[in-house]
Amino acid sequence: MRTSIATVSLSGSLTEKLTAASRAGFDGVEIFENDLLASSLAPAEIRARCADLGLTIDLYQPMRDVEALPEDDFARALRRARHKFELMRGLGADTVLVCSSVSPHALDDDALAAEQLGRLADLAQDHGIRVAYEALAWGRYISTYDHAWHVVKAADHPALGTCLDSFHILSRGSDPKGIEDIPGEKIFFLQLADAPLLAMDVLQWSRHYRCFPGQGGFDLAGLLRHVLRAGYTGPLSLEVFNDVFRQSDAGPTAVDARRSLLVLQEQVGIAALPALTAPTGVAFAELVTPDAAPVSAVLGALGFTRSARHRGKPVDLWQRGDARILVNSGPAERRQGTRLAAVGLESPDPAAAAHRAEALLAPVLPRRRTPGDAPLEAVAAPDGTELFFCATGHPRLPDWRADFEDVQDAGSAPGDDAGWRVDHLSLTQPWHQFDEAALFHHAVLGLRPQESVDVADPYGLLRSRAATTDDGAVRIVLTVGAAPVDDTAHAQHIALATDDVVAAARAHRAAGGELLPIPDNYYDDLAARFIFADGELDTYRELGILYDRDEHGTFRHCYTHTVGRVFFELVQRDGDYRGYGAPNAPVRLAAQHAARGFTGG
Amino acid sequence: MRTSIATVSLSGSLTEKLTAASRAGFDGVEIFENDLLASSLAPAEIRARCADLGLTIDLYQPMRDVEALPEDDFARALRRARHKFELMRGLGADTVLVCSSVSPHALDDDALAAEQLGRLADLAQDHGIRVAYEALAWGRYISTYDHAWHVVKAADHPALGTCLDSFHILSRGSDPKGIEDIPGEKIFFLQLADAPLLAMDVLQWSRHYRCFPGQGGFDLAGLLRHVLRAGYTGPLSLEVFNDVFRQSDAGPTAVDARRSLLVLQEQVGIAALPALTAPTGVAFAELVTPDAAPVSAVLGALGFTRSARHRGKPVDLWQRGDARILVNSGPAERRQGTRLAAVGLESPDPAAAAHRAEALLAPVLPRRRTPGDAPLEAVAAPDGTELFFCATGHPRLPDWRADFEDVQDAGSAPGDDAGWRVDHLSLTQPWHQFDEAALFHHAVLGLRPQESVDVADPYGLLRSRAATTDDGAVRIVLTVGAAPVDDTAHAQHIALATDDVVAAARAHRAAGGELLPIPDNYYDDLAARFIFADGELDTYRELGILYDRDEHGTFRHCYTHTVGRVFFELVQRDGDYRGYGAPNAPVRLAAQHAARGFTGG
Repeated sequence: MRTSIATVSLSGSLTEKLTAASRAGFDGVEIFENDLLASSLAPAEIRARCADLGLTIDLYQPMRDVEALPEDDFARALRRARHKFELMRGLGADTVLVCSSVSPHALDDDALAAEQLGRLADLAQDHGIRVAYEALAWGRYISTYDHAWHVVKAADHPALGTCLDSFHILSRGSDPKGIEDIPGEKIFFLQLADAPLLAMDVLQWSRHYRCFPGQGGFDLAGLLRHVLRAGYTGPLSLEVFNDVFRQSDAGPTAVDARRSLLVLQEQVGIAALPALTAPTGVAFAELVTPDAAPVSAVLGALGFTRSARHRGKPVDLWQRGDARILVNSGPAERRQGTRLAAVGLESPDPAAAAHRAEALLAPVLPRRRTPGDAPLEAVAAPDGTELFFCATGHPRLPDWRADFEDVQDAGSAPGDDAGWRVDHLSLTQPWHQFDEAALFHHAVLGLRPQESVDVADPYGLLRSRAATTDDGAVRIVLTVGAAPVDDTAHAQHIALATDDVVAAARAHRAAGGELLPIPDNYYDDLAARFIFADGELDTYRELGILYDRDEHGTFRHCYTHTVGRVFFELVQRDGDYRGYGAPNAPVRLAAQHAARGFTGG
Repeated sequence: MRTSIATVSLSGSLTEKLTAASRAGFDGVEIFENDLLASSLAPAEIRARCADLGLTIDLYQPMRDVEALPEDDFARALRRARHKFELMRGLGADTVLVCSSVSPHALDDDALAAEQLGRLADLAQDHGIRVAYEALAWGRYISTYDHAWHVVKAADHPALGTCLDSFHILSRGSDPKGIEDIPGEKIFFLQLADAPLLAMDVLQWSRHYRCFPGQGGFDLAGLLRHVLRAGYTGPLSLEVFNDVFRQSDAGPTAVDARRSLLVLQEQVGIAALPALTAPTGVAFAELVTPDAAPVSAVLGALGFTRSARHRGKPVDLWQRGDARILVNSGPAERRQGTRLAAVGLESPDPAAAAHRAEALLAPVLPRRRTPGDAPLEAVAAPDGTELFFCATGHPRLPDWRADFEDVQDAGSAPGDDAGWRVDHLSLTQPWHQFDEAALFHHAVLGLRPQESVDVADPYGLLRSRAATTDDGAVRIVLTVGAAPVDDTAHAQHIALATDDVVAAARAHRAAGGELLPIPDNYYDDLAARFIFADGELDTYRELGILYDRDEHGTFRHCYTHTVGRVFFELVQRDGDYRGYGAPNAPVRLAAQHAARGFTGG
């Protein structure tokens, strides 16, 4: 099916919006009236610009407060409409959206509404235009899709049909099944928007919190199936009012938008994307740094061994058990300080995983960085993190380790590596791309996003959302700050699982490593909340180990100091604990602020 | 009455919060448990710090899920409580807040709740502590203040009383009159918070959108009167959870907080502040600039005359009719480029106005800048704008113009000055201080804040709120961007009223001035919406004049180009139009973005 996007869903000038929609691969646009009014391009110029960009103008919108009015008011509305129909001729747009009246002058009279919509459709037909009538969720008398269809049906005019908008339908809790009773050819247009499930005034909810399909809580696939069964063949068009998107660059937003439609089309079985091949583990995490020494010192104190070095680049492989960290001090990567730049994911079929990512509009990275490298499938996540699809140790597929040459540092002392692996990776997202990141990780990698959690940092709330495979083999925690500032100031971290966090913490200290000091008050509170074995709490207090418990099990964790943007967490999960110690996060964040050396790097 | 503030209302570490509360003049604090847990100070150290700062610890909070529990759960709750009571001894806090249970284990059994609260109070009493029991608006079974009081009354324990929280009472629409039925000595504590009137989930509303008294929509003065009539003599304490405050510096937030309590106390007649003397007009607006030439050129083209020069400083007075603009190119002010730095307000009693501002915690500026200056009363607004209280032409008070010496430029051509005055000033507020600014302008200057308006800029929503005297003699429009970035990038503007905007615009062009070009599409839309006299719309189109109409009258306005952060608007109000052309703002903002020269300056 053709895809379309309303210009109001994107930021910038009209020309910026059109360019972004075209580059993201949309087939058409809805022109939002205010975007046209604010543009210095004449309608014919907009038409030409769209044609150059390969975009059709699928809808002009909105026309308001037209129907069920006293005759004088209706005459004025018709006069306005005539102007707009002439404008639409210039634009080359053949469908106009008419929203149900919110006017205080509107009358509760369906027959009058049908009669006046018929007269409007007469005028539209004279201009070669179709009228798509939509029930606003807050319409004065007509506020449900079935009511709007009832009026359209009564008017019985070939140039009059209905427009369905998923937000207006689902925000009111209407049953979308009745859509199947509308003849497909009378559904002139379909606007799609998702939204988080908020209990709030529907107008404010609609104007500020809409989001792209798959980023909210509505069952859009269910709705779309009903619309398809009704026989609708028009475009799938996104109309999203969102405060964040208004501040974001139109380009990435348009890509995010089209990805959401691809996923939706796949869900209802009308788009064939390469099948998902979910990752089965973390092959490595790659840190880039202008100076390998500080982060190497931390890894060494954590009992990692520098086991291999890249044959052609200044990249070291550090390993303990199944946890592997690459430390890349190559010159191209030095500018931003020490940061987590890439993640290797074990994949049953790296090529298939990359094909799916590409089909879902992820930028594909060169398979070989330098001529000598083993070929590796890689794409970029929305935050720029490079995702490598790996088949470590696979007999017939290229192994990324082939580029590395074994070394064995004199000083390394292999400890007990049982259970050591990457537990999770915490990646700070650009403020504008938090919802996009969750959809991306779900659609591209098959990681299931969990509930968002608000965490109180002393200087603002953070939001945090984990996305994981069902077996927990890959866990990525997406975090975002309170405001669109300092994206790069927030820390990222690598959490390392061990079977004995106490021993790991002690060994780290003994090797000269530092652990984040946790206030005594925290341990007094633990003593009030839980009963511990003799001495247990003293051990945690001594080492700065935090503790959490849920109905499934327990979680113990502690933190290294921070290098650049990166710190490490040591975690021990017992029982079937599935969280990330969120109740402890405010204490940890405050401790990191207090111990500036732990955050400033 | 004593004033207090909960540490959760301020950002930063516990020590930063305490310092800010003390500096703003609070008498005490509520210690929020998470702030203590995250602090490296031991309870006795916190007690000492508070004593040094002159703060009492009026409340420790919160204790949760204590009452109406199965016996096993209650035993665990008592164990927790014992720990906390010991901690409170160290703190020197004698009152603890207990919130009504939200536990899924809680039982719908008032008798059990009373019995268990009594046992908790026994334990508290042993520690010299009082329990203040509060109904959370989302409590599982006990969610209204009268229900909580009913349980407290049934328990009949000297160490058990109730805590009243304005948010929990007013968010549920409870009638606060019943508070008068509670004996004053059983109201152990009063927590105050305002909130905007939002239709949303009460828990989210409470956790994110509370604000200080006078900044929301609750009738806090009405509630407080009931509490005082009940005989309450404890502190007035603010407990505000707010996403913006969490990101703001604690210092200004604490000042804003205490100002809100002063205003509230004045409203209920328990604080004697110097009486309000509302301003009667705008004496001048002062621009500071590193280079007087560009802004002087605009003023000259607008028909202003450089009529006087400061005797001791590089400050020119430009005048047309009753509109006066000072252009200050003094060296101390050059750093931030051209900006609106000060406003002179005509006052019937400048000294009284300054005294009130000072009592309301506005920083007072030196009366004389240099020894030769006329003494002038001045304070700083929250955004740093200097407010001068003037008595222009008053026979017995110092006149600011005494510092100026008349000049008459050769090139100036006095036009028809009828009706020329400052219509309004638009001041961009720091993102964190928008609500504070509205309260400040209301409390200090008597300007009545009008509804907030969201305005779509191509790159994000702006909020705009006018504050005016009832007669419109002083109108200040407070605006704020969508996010805490670029506070200083947003433009400020001075709107000049004239009786003939068309003539003024033509004259400006003829004198070489530029006017912001407005897209043709805007005028086509005007033609659709309104009927104009022959040629009228062509004139507007030619000059870039925007048009609005409401039920009271019409508004025509146009814009100069921007110098630094500042541009001028020419406005003509006819009839009793009271707005600011808000429907045209998106078009104006887009035009300013399009004509970069108009914003970049």
